[in-house]
Amino acid sequence: MEITQAKNAICSPCGFQAAGRAAGIKKSGGLDLALLYSQVPALACGVFTKNTFAAHPVVVCRKHLKGKKAQCIIVNSGNANCFTGKEGGEVVRKTVSLTASLLKIKENLVLPASTGIIGRQLDFTKIKDSLDILAHSLGVKNGDDFARAIMTTDTRPKELKTNFLINGKVVAIGAAAKGSGMIAPDMATMLCFITTDARIEYNALKKALKEAVEESFNMISVDGCMSTNDSVIIMANGLAGNKAIRPQGRDFLKFSGRLKELCLELAKMIVRDGEGASKFIAISVSGARNNREAKRCALQIANSNLFKTAMYGQNSNMGRVVAAIGSAGLKLKDNIRVTHSPLTNKDIELKVNLMSGKGSAAVYTSDLTPEYIKINAGYN
Amino acid sequence: MEITQAKNAICSPCGFQAAGRAAGIKKSGGLDLALLYSQVPALACGVFTKNTFAAHPVVVCRKHLKGKKAQCIIVNSGNANCFTGKEGGEVVRKTVSLTASLLKIKENLVLPASTGIIGRQLDFTKIKDSLDILAHSLGVKNGDDFARAIMTTDTRPKELKTNFLINGKVVAIGAAAKGSGMIAPDMATMLCFITTDARIEYNALKKALKEAVEESFNMISVDGCMSTNDSVIIMANGLAGNKAIRPQGRDFLKFSGRLKELCLELAKMIVRDGEGASKFIAISVSGARNNREAKRCALQIANSNLFKTAMYGQNSNMGRVVAAIGSAGLKLKDNIRVTHSPLTNKDIELKVNLMSGKGSAAVYTSDLTPEYIKINAGYN
Repeated sequence: MEITQAKNAICSPCGFQAAGRAAGIKKSGGLDLALLYSQVPALACGVFTKNTFAAHPVVVCRKHLKGKKAQCIIVNSGNANCFTGKEGGEVVRKTVSLTASLLKIKENLVLPASTGIIGRQLDFTKIKDSLDILAHSLGVKNGDDFARAIMTTDTRPKELKTNFLINGKVVAIGAAAKGSGMIAPDMATMLCFITTDARIEYNALKKALKEAVEESFNMISVDGCMSTNDSVIIMANGLAGNKAIRPQGRDFLKFSGRLKELCLELAKMIVRDGEGASKFIAISVSGARNNREAKRCALQIANSNLFKTAMYGQNSNMGRVVAAIGSAGLKLKDNIRVTHSPLTNKDIELKVNLMSGKGSAAVYTSDLTPEYIKINAGYN
Repeated sequence: MEITQAKNAICSPCGFQAAGRAAGIKKSGGLDLALLYSQVPALACGVFTKNTFAAHPVVVCRKHLKGKKAQCIIVNSGNANCFTGKEGGEVVRKTVSLTASLLKIKENLVLPASTGIIGRQLDFTKIKDSLDILAHSLGVKNGDDFARAIMTTDTRPKELKTNFLINGKVVAIGAAAKGSGMIAPDMATMLCFITTDARIEYNALKKALKEAVEESFNMISVDGCMSTNDSVIIMANGLAGNKAIRPQGRDFLKFSGRLKELCLELAKMIVRDGEGASKFIAISVSGARNNREAKRCALQIANSNLFKTAMYGQNSNMGRVVAAIGSAGLKLKDNIRVTHSPLTNKDIELKVNLMSGKGSAAVYTSDLTPEYIKINAGYN
């Protein structure tokens, strides 16, 4: 495997250190404050939620990333710091400011992120009391603590790494992500932090990230309903010393290809760990007039409660697939073909051929189970 | 009450007769073939699903209604006759043809409808064997049989009637509907048949129906996902003898107002009888920049699995409401207000004030329960 699961993956590229700590934000007392640091300022960019009520940390990230650089990411879980008014905005500003002063870097090199419940005030004193120790515990072996401290309803950390040669230099990419409960955007935001020591031009980094997100995190079902906190951030610190990767050519394709693979694997891990999920379902649509329409049909199926419930029930009711596709309102022939692997399997492959062209797309989702309702009926 | 629940409601306007019979299409052996007949040809129009894979009977209705008249509606439950290829199309044509010949009317005055499972062939011999007896059992007292014969997963028939004066003449409207499992479009299509003895111009009838549907059946949550068979049809036979209602003026407002009330009550009955529903939730959005945006926000909440699950769990997690509204992608202020009646009630009222204008909308939905999953995991 070119992409491997590994503890501490986020620290596998040169020059990155991480830390995680229990600051008392989560009721459970688990790890809930995470810090990621690059020993030199890194080029950085991100892709964020399109939700109108973007959380305070998302607003700050967007602002800081205008400078195209970052050196540190500070994350809390257990509270989304969203819909928390001016007070919530103040908490992020103070968190960023304290982090910057402890690490002796500029405030606009600090990127904040939060995940957890919406509409409840995040207690800054808890962050304040823990940040100093957190900053002092930064280390090149603490990536797993980081990956655990960003979790909410995830049952396991999600860490991947890969490395490859660019002009004879070993370049590494590492990442830690936390899941969405698939259709559970407010409590289980998707966060993904990616590190790389590649030297790469800003435009190339941005293009590679955008394409990778489009083909991975945007291909898993989150119910059309984006979280207020969804964030994917990449930092490239250049310490691998390769010749800088430009936005086209063989090196770019290599970097961008690996980044896509890594993001797609992370996205699939998120689906597998979806709230209450008992099945992993890969939906492939082919024969569409173009890729965009294929994706639309695939997502329409993935977001259909009826389809997801049928998968849980191992019920081969393919009329539900047809109805879901038809509700996209596209012009389609009525000779489409639907096939699937045995529904008793844990991993199910659903294939749809629209018989109209060469467009295709693959989307990943989980089933809808009584366990999902149990988890979400009680969450607060 | 101006709108009343009554058995046989669909036969309350003058000149309408109905019948229902068990033809063996449903596995359960219940009533599954329904016939509605007007003693004179009636003006007729309908509103149908926008699903690309509209069922065969929907295609035939659209064609026949170009003539603006109908005299009879023939409905089967237990099979949607959708995605059944040429063979399924042939079944509808034969059904229409046989119905017309038994009733001695023109084929294009017959409107067919189906509801049930998608993608399975509808056995015409069952219809053929029952149609003769069904036609002979038409009567002015058999509206309740009709209302029961169109049911699928509904637990009770849905019948409403109303009457009022137009120019000193008593005009009646009656209706029978069958429910959608709220977010269960392929197995539980929404069908609604409305009869009236009002004399009314075609343009007035069409306008009144369109407005009524927009403010009722389009205000209940069906998961964005339209059934392949959704149909609302009205027949106006003019036997009340009133001066013909024109598309504007006091008489139109009276007729159209009553029709809206009746459709809204039916829509609410459908929500209350939604699959597995334990709560009835009325979502009112005010303070929007316009009514369209208010409706969009309200539907976004109504279609959020997380919100629906929270309502089942009596869990006051209003962050989920905010996240759902925000995912509509509208420009909104962040001082919106969300209030609700006690979540322990069976009927819950959720009020959202967007604080941005005078637009408003009300949408109705049910909660998402383990019972819903149980019903749908096993349905085939």
